[in-house]
Amino acid sequence: MDPTARIETALNRAFLRTLPGGPPLLAGAMRHAIFPGGARVRPRLCLAVAAACGDDAPDATDAVAAAIEMLHCASLVHDDLPCFDDAATRRGKPSVHAAFGSPIAVLAGDALIVLAFQAIAWGALATPARLGALVLTLGQAVGMPSGICAGQAWESEPNPDITAYQRAKTGALFAAATMAGAAAAGADPLPWRHLGEYLGLAYQVADDLLDAAATEADKPVGQDARLGRPNAVQTYGINGALDLLTSLAHDAAAAIPDCPGATPLRALITQEASRLVPKNLARVA
Amino acid sequence: MDPTARIETALNRAFLRTLPGGPPLLAGAMRHAIFPGGARVRPRLCLAVAAACGDDAPDATDAVAAAIEMLHCASLVHDDLPCFDDAATRRGKPSVHAAFGSPIAVLAGDALIVLAFQAIAWGALATPARLGALVLTLGQAVGMPSGICAGQAWESEPNPDITAYQRAKTGALFAAATMAGAAAAGADPLPWRHLGEYLGLAYQVADDLLDAAATEADKPVGQDARLGRPNAVQTYGINGALDLLTSLAHDAAAAIPDCPGATPLRALITQEASRLVPKNLARVA
Repeated sequence: MDPTARIETALNRAFLRTLPGGPPLLAGAMRHAIFPGGARVRPRLCLAVAAACGDDAPDATDAVAAAIEMLHCASLVHDDLPCFDDAATRRGKPSVHAAFGSPIAVLAGDALIVLAFQAIAWGALATPARLGALVLTLGQAVGMPSGICAGQAWESEPNPDITAYQRAKTGALFAAATMAGAAAAGADPLPWRHLGEYLGLAYQVADDLLDAAATEADKPVGQDARLGRPNAVQTYGINGALDLLTSLAHDAAAAIPDCPGATPLRALITQEASRLVPKNLARVA
Repeated sequence: MDPTARIETALNRAFLRTLPGGPPLLAGAMRHAIFPGGARVRPRLCLAVAAACGDDAPDATDAVAAAIEMLHCASLVHDDLPCFDDAATRRGKPSVHAAFGSPIAVLAGDALIVLAFQAIAWGALATPARLGALVLTLGQAVGMPSGICAGQAWESEPNPDITAYQRAKTGALFAAATMAGAAAAGADPLPWRHLGEYLGLAYQVADDLLDAAATEADKPVGQDARLGRPNAVQTYGINGALDLLTSLAHDAAAAIPDCPGATPLRALITQEASRLVPKNLARVA
């Protein structure tokens, strides 16, 4: 099965377990948050790392990939709430709170976080010795002191730690994607951390470039500037940010640990990194 | 160590792991939500069941008890938000959103859910074969289709399933307390479900009585009636609700499965149930 099909199947499988007898609006809101997805960047990365490590427990791998996407979607649902970004749309359709109201949106985020942990427990039923590392890897990526929640909370601090903010807001879940992909395949997750962190930084820089280059139809322009968030384009200019992106992609490819599938993984990482540059962004000579 | 000390120590131990380098406001809000606690009813129940089953892995037991309390506190933080109950106070002090603002309150609930799952993974490091059952038991208690999130979501439905609502809103976490207490001690959790469900129902009836009997100083009067929630006192009257409470306590005591410590557990359950009747509520003859 190709990676996209694996991810959608795993997401559907986990989601279907939430349905029987539950409140329909919350079920609808959770589905709205997950389907149809964006690029599924993090779960694809997770599958790629697991494949490079042998992928000997595909049920665990699929579940972890789905869990990482659910945690990502949960963070988007909560970030879009009126008390944060107050975003009316997401991926070209109404945001969850715009479609279902804020109470259901809060609960949808909560229930997706819970479902992520349930999914890895179901997925690791045949490989129970791997579950602890998976729970702790995902927990570190989304909780305190350095996961997504921490990243979002830095925006409420009067004097945010910018490095910790960037790392937690985007890098943490990328690091979890590589680490948990390795752990699902029975490999030591720690050597895989740097790869994920470099890719997370690259993705953040790409997002800053997108934010600077986007037209209103794609994405609200200048969102970062309005909210006073740190931004690579503001700091380094467009050319500097493009150079940084190239450099981070090189660092990522070089950070791949020894493993059976290192060569194809390196090729994949390089290819994916080149897709991160916004297409409409002409390089200023 | 007595149960109260075990619970506070386990909560502090988990909480301290969230601190190094994280955003201080979120850390403060999480602490505000957990300390000082209420009656810690659910974690005490969890410890009591684990003790009745032999409590041969006290690290796992302590972690699960703490996790259940964190999930309970997380649900209170989110329930108090302006988009739900808009409660300005909780346990005699400002609610988390009143003290820290809605963004940090949303994140505090999220981070407490995550911390609960991290805590059981840390607690089960020496007994990894028990972790799967613990994750799934807690997940079922708080997620979809029948956990706390589902219970809260029924309040947004035009035609709520009242039985499912009551079960999910209060019963689910009590069932998790008994089931996870057993699972932490290596026992089969399923036979412990009914005990928790009966106690959850008893606690809900007691809460309805408290809601009916409370003075403004204790708790907002008539909260349930205002929100159109189902309520045992409205349905059966005060005497009927008191009879129901007694009957549920008997059912609970009778539902204790065979285990080494069944007799002291039965005595404890009966004693705790008698404490649930609001003190200022005179029985109408």
